[in-house]
Amino acid sequence: MDRLLSQIESPLDLSDFSNDKLDELAAEMREVLCNLVSKRTAHFASNLGVIELCLALHTEFDFRTDRLIWDTGHQIYPQKLITGRYHEFPTIRTRGGLMGYPNPQESEYDLFMTGHAGCSVATVMGLHAGDELQGESQRQAVAVIGDGAFPSGIVFEAFNNAAGMRSKLLVVLNDNEMSICPRVGGLASYLDRLRMNPYYRGFKDEVSRIIKNVPVIGDQAERFVWQMKEAIKAGVHGGMLFEELGFKYFGPIDGHNIRTLRKTLKKVKQVDGPVLLHVLTEKGHGFQPAAEDPVFFHTPAPFEREEENVVAIKKSKSRAYTNVASSAILEHLERNDKATVLTAAMCQGNNLEVVRDTIPKRFFDTGICESFAVAFAAGQAKAGMRPIVAIYSTFLQRSYDQIFQEVALQNLPVTFMLDRAGLTGPDGPTHHGMFDIGYMRVFPNMVVMAPGDAFDLPLMLEFAQQHPAPVSIRYPKTTAEEIARDVRPVQFGKSEIVREGKDGTIIAFGTLLPNAVAAAKELEADGLKIRVINARFAKPLDRETILDAVSQTPFVITVEEGALNGGFGSAVLEAAADAGVAASHVKRLGVPDQFIEHGDRAELLADLNLDMAGLVKTCRELASAEASASDQQQLTGRANAG
Amino acid sequence: MDRLLSQIESPLDLSDFSNDKLDELAAEMREVLCNLVSKRTAHFASNLGVIELCLALHTEFDFRTDRLIWDTGHQIYPQKLITGRYHEFPTIRTRGGLMGYPNPQESEYDLFMTGHAGCSVATVMGLHAGDELQGESQRQAVAVIGDGAFPSGIVFEAFNNAAGMRSKLLVVLNDNEMSICPRVGGLASYLDRLRMNPYYRGFKDEVSRIIKNVPVIGDQAERFVWQMKEAIKAGVHGGMLFEELGFKYFGPIDGHNIRTLRKTLKKVKQVDGPVLLHVLTEKGHGFQPAAEDPVFFHTPAPFEREEENVVAIKKSKSRAYTNVASSAILEHLERNDKATVLTAAMCQGNNLEVVRDTIPKRFFDTGICESFAVAFAAGQAKAGMRPIVAIYSTFLQRSYDQIFQEVALQNLPVTFMLDRAGLTGPDGPTHHGMFDIGYMRVFPNMVVMAPGDAFDLPLMLEFAQQHPAPVSIRYPKTTAEEIARDVRPVQFGKSEIVREGKDGTIIAFGTLLPNAVAAAKELEADGLKIRVINARFAKPLDRETILDAVSQTPFVITVEEGALNGGFGSAVLEAAADAGVAASHVKRLGVPDQFIEHGDRAELLADLNLDMAGLVKTCRELASAEASASDQQQLTGRANAG
Repeated sequence: MDRLLSQIESPLDLSDFSNDKLDELAAEMREVLCNLVSKRTAHFASNLGVIELCLALHTEFDFRTDRLIWDTGHQIYPQKLITGRYHEFPTIRTRGGLMGYPNPQESEYDLFMTGHAGCSVATVMGLHAGDELQGESQRQAVAVIGDGAFPSGIVFEAFNNAAGMRSKLLVVLNDNEMSICPRVGGLASYLDRLRMNPYYRGFKDEVSRIIKNVPVIGDQAERFVWQMKEAIKAGVHGGMLFEELGFKYFGPIDGHNIRTLRKTLKKVKQVDGPVLLHVLTEKGHGFQPAAEDPVFFHTPAPFEREEENVVAIKKSKSRAYTNVASSAILEHLERNDKATVLTAAMCQGNNLEVVRDTIPKRFFDTGICESFAVAFAAGQAKAGMRPIVAIYSTFLQRSYDQIFQEVALQNLPVTFMLDRAGLTGPDGPTHHGMFDIGYMRVFPNMVVMAPGDAFDLPLMLEFAQQHPAPVSIRYPKTTAEEIARDVRPVQFGKSEIVREGKDGTIIAFGTLLPNAVAAAKELEADGLKIRVINARFAKPLDRETILDAVSQTPFVITVEEGALNGGFGSAVLEAAADAGVAASHVKRLGVPDQFIEHGDRAELLADLNLDMAGLVKTCRELASAEASASDQQQLTGRANAG
Repeated sequence: MDRLLSQIESPLDLSDFSNDKLDELAAEMREVLCNLVSKRTAHFASNLGVIELCLALHTEFDFRTDRLIWDTGHQIYPQKLITGRYHEFPTIRTRGGLMGYPNPQESEYDLFMTGHAGCSVATVMGLHAGDELQGESQRQAVAVIGDGAFPSGIVFEAFNNAAGMRSKLLVVLNDNEMSICPRVGGLASYLDRLRMNPYYRGFKDEVSRIIKNVPVIGDQAERFVWQMKEAIKAGVHGGMLFEELGFKYFGPIDGHNIRTLRKTLKKVKQVDGPVLLHVLTEKGHGFQPAAEDPVFFHTPAPFEREEENVVAIKKSKSRAYTNVASSAILEHLERNDKATVLTAAMCQGNNLEVVRDTIPKRFFDTGICESFAVAFAAGQAKAGMRPIVAIYSTFLQRSYDQIFQEVALQNLPVTFMLDRAGLTGPDGPTHHGMFDIGYMRVFPNMVVMAPGDAFDLPLMLEFAQQHPAPVSIRYPKTTAEEIARDVRPVQFGKSEIVREGKDGTIIAFGTLLPNAVAAAKELEADGLKIRVINARFAKPLDRETILDAVSQTPFVITVEEGALNGGFGSAVLEAAADAGVAASHVKRLGVPDQFIEHGDRAELLADLNLDMAGLVKTCRELASAEASASDQQQLTGRANAG
């Protein structure tokens, strides 16, 4: 088992491999991937689809000096296996183990840590421009991009610029007819047509011959010949869309045939200027269940392999926020015929298939086009609809400027549902939703909310959908807990005191609230009565309730699952300063000014003192510091007052 | 004079106009525009270019119910003139007067307040989708977009989605062969080819006839016929790039011929699905100097018209930050051959023509493709270069996600030069650079700076270009003042005490520093000695110097020309809370949580108490409140401490 793979330390070891031996290696790699995902959730189908492409690229180029970017990056596993990381491979997506995305700290072959789609062409062009300016123009530049990422606006921006600069550049379009979910849009139909219209060299020659013999009449003969030449290029050659833009187009070719791949790569390497090589692959290739259901097998839950190909799915039972949200969205759409929902290719991730299938007319999947999605939603809102934009916190960063101009500036009632807002766990820093509290609350008109538990979320959606301004609602990728209580209705700018107390306060913005409640219970044993506030709103802040707590209790902890810089805790400090209330006893807990690695969400929260134990510890420290310092407090107060 | 125009209250008044009378009206409108810009800086050439198009659109559609978005929006003047705003027109771009961009508060004909490029197609699609869902699919949807905005990624995202949805939609491509500066990229070359390959109906028919008579041989006859049909469409028809994507393409047609325009609009209105109408216009049409130099006449300084067409430019003498920056960039590039500079179509606005002409190899104009520009710069940095990205604060919002993933996450040394960071004046809320302090400082690794005066800026650029991490430097559109002093070298995370004092402190982040110094001088007459700190860094903050001031002086004012939520002042509050230093006597001055209208920058600053007088007033208030409250301070301190 893994006879070949276990001996490969770097792609240099492949240099004397025959094509047959590469096929054998591919089979071993496929087996390793299948074994991995039967143990752990990981990106699967996409990795099965690029094994041959990866091997062909690494045999035809030398990516110690040549430049290779795998767009988005979740299809990096084959590259990890052949670049000295085979033995560590079983650690992938665990804390301290390999990342599930490219990581420059792991290998010189991983140039950029990526996870968001579409940037490969731009970055590899930058690498090549830098190489050229330093006299290293022989270094080749290759971007591999899937057809799912392809319609992303930045890809087109890069194509347009590459054509304008006439950069030497190879873009490999990895066309598996899928985003995570089936792809959409005019480009997808175009690619389908190209599949049906392959590049027949012989045929093209025949047509050219015929055309030469066409009788030309009238006084526009010369023009006609020129037109026909162009016409031949367009209709017969295929890939005219890219040719018109200034790329040379090759393909489509079979992405699972190592011989074809290597032969074609040898050829296109020689071409000057930007080249698009269209490669057809199959998501899940070589593992029948994945090939048949690549949506499920994008990042499947662990499964069991019985005999050759049989699969028994281990289903998780707990109810995630994602599910609470999708149920709430469906129910809302059923009640409110002005409501629509938009996703940017994350129909599955947001569990919105049921909405798509039940209310297709008011469901919009824009593909990986977040900028478009938000501006499109703004238009709908202006026309009197109530759009719900369901995009992950980190991917919504792609539409920052549309949130500004198209939504907030117009004060249009668009509801943003930000899933994956917080520590997403094994995906790591490209996927953690760290910045949305800060980026949303800077915009005038924007309301910023986070549910404290499963009860809050549907109430917040209902609130948002009748509020006459944009609203953002954030929640993480985790189980939606329920805090037993008389749930207060959601009122504009009002928090909820979940637990009374006078010895200290924890103000939780969002889904760390259950940890806060648990910590408060634990601390009762110490004789500490901790007030717990479910903030609900980061903007507008419930100044009254929060500043009361700041004034009345000896310490205050703000808790948020997001970046501390400019976050919820800062909003509390701002409110205190504006009101002239002292806040030196306010301690902000959240994510400090660093990128957080991948790992289990619970582990990561514990690292940051955001779990129950961390909150208990912080409360105890503050309570005892307070006790010993309270005599000094007066003096400090006087000194500060100058 | 303005015989026709002065009587037009709405486009309905045009309904019985003959084409000749519309020509006459166009001439009057042109005259009004010329008179305006001889008095005041305003968008000019682009407005001269769309007069006929505007009249044709408003006669062929009824935009009380049909939907029209002028992309970017600076070419909205003709529409303002014929939608009841002629009499107010002379107030345009002055405080309280008409906006220089579309403004829904002025007129029902202005649907979105815009200013950033490329969103028209997406928003108008959203409007149409909303109309359709409400049973109003007869309402037509029209976007007019210039060839400068066209390569912006969101446009392509919208095209792809429009084709996929088969939306009924008319996109008018206003092709004047220009962005603000000459356009770049493969799409531009493509449009040039279309110009040379007009749509000859008769010719197409002739070709079809010929093809029908071509002798077909071999066994691929059927395939051949199909291929040829496609080929004809492609090579002869023109617009294949758009046709391949799923649009019907018409044009190019003459955008200054009202008859052609109206005839064509009548026709394309009937077409189902998405349509691209390619219209050729001339920037500055009808005013010779502007047609000859549309770059200068994009937003010219006021000029004098002598006789018919002669122009004497009134040049401004003071040195703007833009000029200080472009000189510093040029000098740096001359010294450091690893340095490059990137602009996103703002070569003129950033005064970078001299860099482009002197060091063309290391100058990159990406067109209005900010996302691409930042990812491209990241690639260059990874290859060992030191790119300088010069993009306006508000437009850089388009690359928020690339700043996150491609730059900050990789910790690549990209220097961001954010011009127009602050109140830009007459352009208004779409152009004010309000949010960058907040959006930059949330990202780990990012250093956030702002020069206090003209001396600081080149020093900061030098610092940034040797710092091993990304740096952002912000400065507004205004005169670069010089504060006479021993300028301290720029050191990582170090502020500069510009003036000593113990009665209060003003900490200025950025170019309001001269106001702070002037205020401190003024207050000396009151006997108040105010410490003035040139913060230089918002991140990392000079905690020592700043917290000393917070601890030692009876009041502290933070001053920034940007949004207060999550801004510089918040960073100060965060630092104080983290250190357990009381900060209830810290007053944050900056831009509150609202969009700021257009107006003269000085007027706007005065409104916000950010001018010298405002700072003096605030200091006096705080000093007197402090004096009267200092007895109470102790009690409050005790209460707060619980």
